Amino acid sequence: MRVSPSYTVAIRVVVDDTVNTMNLVEVVSEVGAVLTALDIAKADAMGMHIDITADCHDSEHRRQLVEALEELPGVTILSVADSTFLAHMGGKLEVKTKIPVKNRRDLSRVYTPGVARVSTAIADTPDKAYLLTMKSNTVAVVSDGSAVLGLGDIGPAAALPVMEGKAVLFKEFADVDAWPVVLDTNDVDEIVNIVKAIAPAYGGINLEDISAPRCFEIEERLRNELDIPVFHDDQHGTAIVVLAALLNALKVVGKDISEVRIVVAGVGAAGSAIIKLLMAQGAKDIVGYGRTGALHAGDVEGMHPSRRWLAEHTNPRGVTGDLRSGLKDADVFIGVSAGNLLDPEDIAQMADGAIVFALSNPTPEVDPAGASKYAKVIATGRSDYPNQINNVLAFPGLFRGLLDARVSEITTEVLRVCAVAIAGVVSERELDANYIIPGVFDKRVAPAVSEAVRKAVKDLPTREIPVQEHMNL
Amino acid sequence: MRVSPSYTVAIRVVVDDTVNTMNLVEVVSEVGAVLTALDIAKADAMGMHIDITADCHDSEHRRQLVEALEELPGVTILSVADSTFLAHMGGKLEVKTKIPVKNRRDLSRVYTPGVARVSTAIADTPDKAYLLTMKSNTVAVVSDGSAVLGLGDIGPAAALPVMEGKAVLFKEFADVDAWPVVLDTNDVDEIVNIVKAIAPAYGGINLEDISAPRCFEIEERLRNELDIPVFHDDQHGTAIVVLAALLNALKVVGKDISEVRIVVAGVGAAGSAIIKLLMAQGAKDIVGYGRTGALHAGDVEGMHPSRRWLAEHTNPRGVTGDLRSGLKDADVFIGVSAGNLLDPEDIAQMADGAIVFALSNPTPEVDPAGASKYAKVIATGRSDYPNQINNVLAFPGLFRGLLDARVSEITTEVLRVCAVAIAGVVSERELDANYIIPGVFDKRVAPAVSEAVRKAVKDLPTREIPVQEHMNL
Repeated sequence: MRVSPSYTVAIRVVVDDTVNTMNLVEVVSEVGAVLTALDIAKADAMGMHIDITADCHDSEHRRQLVEALEELPGVTILSVADSTFLAHMGGKLEVKTKIPVKNRRDLSRVYTPGVARVSTAIADTPDKAYLLTMKSNTVAVVSDGSAVLGLGDIGPAAALPVMEGKAVLFKEFADVDAWPVVLDTNDVDEIVNIVKAIAPAYGGINLEDISAPRCFEIEERLRNELDIPVFHDDQHGTAIVVLAALLNALKVVGKDISEVRIVVAGVGAAGSAIIKLLMAQGAKDIVGYGRTGALHAGDVEGMHPSRRWLAEHTNPRGVTGDLRSGLKDADVFIGVSAGNLLDPEDIAQMADGAIVFALSNPTPEVDPAGASKYAKVIATGRSDYPNQINNVLAFPGLFRGLLDARVSEITTEVLRVCAVAIAGVVSERELDANYIIPGVFDKRVAPAVSEAVRKAVKDLPTREIPVQEHMNL
Repeated sequence: MRVSPSYTVAIRVVVDDTVNTMNLVEVVSEVGAVLTALDIAKADAMGMHIDITADCHDSEHRRQLVEALEELPGVTILSVADSTFLAHMGGKLEVKTKIPVKNRRDLSRVYTPGVARVSTAIADTPDKAYLLTMKSNTVAVVSDGSAVLGLGDIGPAAALPVMEGKAVLFKEFADVDAWPVVLDTNDVDEIVNIVKAIAPAYGGINLEDISAPRCFEIEERLRNELDIPVFHDDQHGTAIVVLAALLNALKVVGKDISEVRIVVAGVGAAGSAIIKLLMAQGAKDIVGYGRTGALHAGDVEGMHPSRRWLAEHTNPRGVTGDLRSGLKDADVFIGVSAGNLLDPEDIAQMADGAIVFALSNPTPEVDPAGASKYAKVIATGRSDYPNQINNVLAFPGLFRGLLDARVSEITTEVLRVCAVAIAGVVSERELDANYIIPGVFDKRVAPAVSEAVRKAVKDLPTREIPVQEHMNL
């Protein structure tokens, strides 16, 4: 089992003068934890106060470490804190004001009476909100907490730390001001009405962790009824990064997307968006698998419309049967379903130069190490294997581009160019079976994506706001 | 007419070498504008580029200034910008992240997989949201844009600059993170449902600029149905500051609140809240005036319930008739209605040591200079007279205290102690007819208010969150 920085413990001990601090280091190492810092906090009559920071596997392992330290003669544990919880204390966001209000002059400009003139200008010309308010750079991260990470329906309050984290990534990766909107309702009509009602303050809507199939209807209705871009990250963010990785993986194995056989396990939010985006890039032979086997046009009775669409527009060879049998001679496997669905040996029946994206998290559909015996390229959703498929490669740059261009909608073409841009960050020289997708901290990614978006939307309706009109007399 | 910093103009001119810059200064002065800065921006082949910043009365005056400068030989106008609009460009708020995400370790703590543990902790113990999320320090500033400043129903987009300004004040005066929630609906049920749905992310709700009588029902229902404090600033913020000012004004004239006759002109949102809070402080003889005259228990047929309550609980002497006649022998006049309702001579019939709060903005109910011939103490809503009644004295410190104490409701007693605390900032030694209320930039105010709130809520239900429980193993 590996240690994880999400299980970092911060232990404050006090040691008397019989203790050699090297003993502390040894104890940490003996229990299999990884010491990341040993800081002397202070020294007083009790002895020397030392902060030990170490990564553990899990809470049980953390407890073992504390007990081992406690057994050392001359060592007293003062406190044990969890650095992940410490990082979240008091939340991860705050509101920053761009203009100071230190005197009467500031106040009359920022608030009354000056602000009345700004409000009047927007009442007269609504699009001026893009110039004179936060709308220009602000995105709502909307969730009802119904499908949060792998945790399921944990509700809005428990979803809030995740949405705050998302907002942190928006800001850090693309300077987009994102704000969590967690909703205490699962009702589709209510969610649609609420998002429409709060929309005037936002330049875009990022839907997040809303369970299927409600997410499809919510997104579609909001796209039709709002004049700002609406994006469901679990669908399209994943689809963008999968397509980006696939484009480069196909280069590695020397195959063409229009000719390969693609198997997709999981036809929920992510799966269906992936299939549609691959089709937009020219993929022709895709078979999607749900829990009951291959989706095909011969069996659409009673299906949800979104799934029925897939059944009728994919699987041109009319494949039936289960996932295992469907893998025979497939060039590409993309899993967005559940852990340990397949044995590594199942991959053996795929075509030569097989590409396997096992994206279920934290446990992939097939063990990546085992699968690598049979597949040429492997990608996962995890950070501890090569080729991580991570949405953070897409959404920050995408919204940066959308906000900059002030577009009112997101087309499939916009999603597609994002994928091409991400793939393009890995140069021909760098390209390798273990490097088909840029790392999440690659600073080239967000600018490449936003630039691609700005180019792609040139022909879409955008808001041209006459700056001079009200800035000049 | 006075110049105003909300009409500051920034003019970029280029001058050739025949021009003496002192001529520019003279022109500004000749047209009656007030020069606030003259900066040399650069010099090039065109000549010297100079930025002139000056305060004007209004747009017409600003145009005169530009024309006068244009007439000077050797002077060319390059651009004319409005510094109030410049201050609002791109909005006044941004989202600040409290934790950097510079590497994989940060990412796995702030977002997946670490955040899943934080979410699970909140799903298990919902009140931990106060410890581990932004809820602990965040307030929603909610408006439907139906009664914005003196502008009326300008809608949510045009209200946004005002709500952003409010959020700036929350942050600057009390380090409260406030977020604008402007709603594209005027429907009471919808507004109530939306605020309830978004509430999990917030530690408090500040309702703002919602028209009466809808604001009464919205506030009442939200107070009943939410477990976080709900505060309508136009009502209670104004009431707090009025009571604070009145307490000190009564000291100046040596009268007791339980014995004075009080006339209130305007029984909308602010007026009714003022009346109720004065009653909570012991005022007994209050007569409220609407457009049809004095409210009295003898004529409540067809009245809105909120107004009917006032008619039945005030006016113990059963006064009828119009406002002018009602002023006879009154000790206190409080106007929250419309400009120029009264002549200065109307004040003459009030009792000796009359107190006049003419709070209509920008034009007071009675000319303050004229009224000062007859009244002992005058206050207005304007910054250019002494004794400004400004809500910014109340709401930042109030919410600071409410968030610190994690209370779930606001009682009238909490409002009352805020008023007493604000009044107490002006010491006996400082107290004067022209100094009954602290200035808006008085740094003593917000801490005094929040301290008073924390003390007052000691007996209210609050959330005790066991920090140690999850911080220690």
